[in-house]
Amino acid sequence: MLHWDLATQMPEGGAAARSEQLAGLKLVCHEIITDAAMPDLLDGAAAQNDLDPWQRANLKEMRRSWLHAGSIAADLVEASSKASSACEMAWRVARPANDFAAVLPTLQRVLDRTREVAALKAARLGKTPYDALLDQYEPDGSEAAIDAVFEPLARSLPALIDGAIAAQARRPAPVPPAGPFPIAAQREAAVKLMTRLGFDFDHGRLDISLHPFCGGTPDDVRITTRYDEDDFRRALMGVLHETGHALYERGLPEAWRRQPVGKARGMGLHESQSLLVEMQVCRSRAFHDYVAPILRETFGRSGPEWEPENLYRLNTRVERSLIRVDADEVTYPAHVILRYRLERALLKGDLALADLPAAWNDAMRELIGLAPPDDRQGCLQDIHWYDGAFGYFPTYTLGAMTAAHLFDAAKRADPAIEPGIGRGEFAPLFAWLRAQVHGKASSLSTQEIIVQATGKPLDAAIFERHLRARYLDA
Amino acid sequence: MLHWDLATQMPEGGAAARSEQLAGLKLVCHEIITDAAMPDLLDGAAAQNDLDPWQRANLKEMRRSWLHAGSIAADLVEASSKASSACEMAWRVARPANDFAAVLPTLQRVLDRTREVAALKAARLGKTPYDALLDQYEPDGSEAAIDAVFEPLARSLPALIDGAIAAQARRPAPVPPAGPFPIAAQREAAVKLMTRLGFDFDHGRLDISLHPFCGGTPDDVRITTRYDEDDFRRALMGVLHETGHALYERGLPEAWRRQPVGKARGMGLHESQSLLVEMQVCRSRAFHDYVAPILRETFGRSGPEWEPENLYRLNTRVERSLIRVDADEVTYPAHVILRYRLERALLKGDLALADLPAAWNDAMRELIGLAPPDDRQGCLQDIHWYDGAFGYFPTYTLGAMTAAHLFDAAKRADPAIEPGIGRGEFAPLFAWLRAQVHGKASSLSTQEIIVQATGKPLDAAIFERHLRARYLDA
Repeated sequence: MLHWDLATQMPEGGAAARSEQLAGLKLVCHEIITDAAMPDLLDGAAAQNDLDPWQRANLKEMRRSWLHAGSIAADLVEASSKASSACEMAWRVARPANDFAAVLPTLQRVLDRTREVAALKAARLGKTPYDALLDQYEPDGSEAAIDAVFEPLARSLPALIDGAIAAQARRPAPVPPAGPFPIAAQREAAVKLMTRLGFDFDHGRLDISLHPFCGGTPDDVRITTRYDEDDFRRALMGVLHETGHALYERGLPEAWRRQPVGKARGMGLHESQSLLVEMQVCRSRAFHDYVAPILRETFGRSGPEWEPENLYRLNTRVERSLIRVDADEVTYPAHVILRYRLERALLKGDLALADLPAAWNDAMRELIGLAPPDDRQGCLQDIHWYDGAFGYFPTYTLGAMTAAHLFDAAKRADPAIEPGIGRGEFAPLFAWLRAQVHGKASSLSTQEIIVQATGKPLDAAIFERHLRARYLDA
Repeated sequence: MLHWDLATQMPEGGAAARSEQLAGLKLVCHEIITDAAMPDLLDGAAAQNDLDPWQRANLKEMRRSWLHAGSIAADLVEASSKASSACEMAWRVARPANDFAAVLPTLQRVLDRTREVAALKAARLGKTPYDALLDQYEPDGSEAAIDAVFEPLARSLPALIDGAIAAQARRPAPVPPAGPFPIAAQREAAVKLMTRLGFDFDHGRLDISLHPFCGGTPDDVRITTRYDEDDFRRALMGVLHETGHALYERGLPEAWRRQPVGKARGMGLHESQSLLVEMQVCRSRAFHDYVAPILRETFGRSGPEWEPENLYRLNTRVERSLIRVDADEVTYPAHVILRYRLERALLKGDLALADLPAAWNDAMRELIGLAPPDDRQGCLQDIHWYDGAFGYFPTYTLGAMTAAHLFDAAKRADPAIEPGIGRGEFAPLFAWLRAQVHGKASSLSTQEIIVQATGKPLDAAIFERHLRARYLDA
């Protein structure tokens, strides 16, 4: 709630006090979880014979939190957090100045601390250093499991990107509706679609922030967006994306609120829920049949650029680009694979930070076929590493793949799901997701949830088939 | 911040989870302050010889918090808090239904628990039970000190009320400007006056809530109001009142942020700052010379009802009324004295709860000269007792008296203060308040702050003189 407030309500002068408030709360939480009584409490609970599977899973999650929290001494926690804060501040100056050299020394300190942290977590969790960092975002995830799905995708992507661009070049270019689009109307359209998807405004809000996010709690889910008067599509697609996150949170089991097992499973599965809504459902051709008249009515406009097919083509445009957050569904995984490879090499010591810009540019050429003209559009673009977040990037593309995999199974499990989309009827889809994903919270691993829901482990081929069907065959 | 969010932003469905969040945080705070190491830490600090006066005062406030927190066992804290929650809920039904009998049993439980708490706090703090409860809101306050100022006031009030009503009856009645007054314009006027008074929107906000309040933190002070399109005066006066609270918070010394000694002194002094701004400054005749043209311009209106004298007469209208929160400056103290007398009698066991309605109505006849037609307009009107707050009411009138006392001294200390008001120049006044009140935080007792600022202890005669000058002589 304090994070939400910071991003949406707080006056600028409150920033320093807010940092201290957040740090204070974090410290209190850390002290509670690292209490000396904790190992005995955990062991005592584990020795009970009458625990049901949810209680056992809850205990497993408690132990995971305790292992992570206790893996690093207080002074390393502080050193690491200070290094990240300093580096993030340096990055905020270095990025617009296109000056990687200026941020290099502070980034080196972040990387050094992160490697120390990774080594300690690895020892305590019995994992490789990379897997130990990954485990913070993607519990039970592993390099091996990621490689198994990323490597085939990395091999197919160049041809997929080429093919998609060639296919769209054979069609007339879609025409973007011309603005301005008043913010009140954009919000009205967003609220209409959120409500239709099942977002309950009695248990949530839609606000404005610089970077869209989904925050709050399962009983009070708060999503944000940012409006551009010249282009309504970006805010709208952002809202639909965050609505997917929000519906996951709302669907978590009420009986396990505020228990570790009652929390969302991990970042990969979370992203699968936002991308299932945004990419699988709301960028589909069928959805545009439903949404086009709503947009025409809300904005009081009409004409050929408001036809479903034109809007669909706009919302599925593929383009080689330098910036991850602007990337489309086909090129996005290449951006992620690039970062995954580089952050592993940095952590393993196979790549020196000073060589990062060149390595980044080489990888961009190989994976996307573009050479960044400067570091601002290269290795300076994302906050993650500068903020100390290593092991996070793969969750974006794990999410995209999982979304395709789950949606494929959902459509086969309930034949009402697919035809519902063109009519704006999403209840069958969310009934399936509630039962198969949301309601399971952290009672199973991500892979177990996927297997139980779809009959098989995460399969890169399904995501590729989706891309092929949408971008090559159609 | 969570309270502010609850009142201004939270969707209704978030209420249950928010209660648990607040209770959880309260519990964590209670556990920290009642830690077994605390007595030794406090004693060890007190044994230091090199503490400066602020450090010593800080330690005194720490000890006060610790004494209060440790005075009641966890089960009584819980029983007391549950009784208050249940009673508040019953009151929310009983008040509109005008059914005191319905809430009587739960109110009895609240009173029983409160008497237990008062006895325990009294023993631990070395105070009378009433003073021990009062100490939570008005540190170092006492029945004796309150009686010393309330009793003379109670004796003068009936004649003051009669005189004020007779004086205004000899003048033509002021004419209220006719609405509607768009909310946006009301807010614009409020922001203009807040800014002029010194409210810094880089460190604070103005929002809407059902019951106006001042919340947030000294670095991010958030006040609220409620707008009525038919009457701009109520929201505006409310905003000016809360601005007084906000400026006190903003004026607390930055060097002692998040330390007990750095907090505002108590509810009486806090209310003195809101009432000094609202009553002493903003309901003065001179302020209306300044504000009338601003209001005419903001609302785009003019005419005799927008003249300073007419607006001043509207904002200083005296009327015998049944409801405290609607009362004017002259009758308000009578409402408070009534409650102070009754809550003392209830706590001492001199008054049975079943007899409260009759005792209330008798006291209303005696002090204000009106007989409530029902309990809804009598002893059911205020949430305080039903929510477990005994010992709070006197701070309203202590605040009003302190405001008059401080303002009187301020005007004599700096001759620029009084003429500044008609020109909207408040800097000299707040410079004096920052130095004499805000900046002292909790380094001294309320009485010490008053004596240092004005040369003598709180004097009821100054408040009476103010009422007489404004309502009888003018």
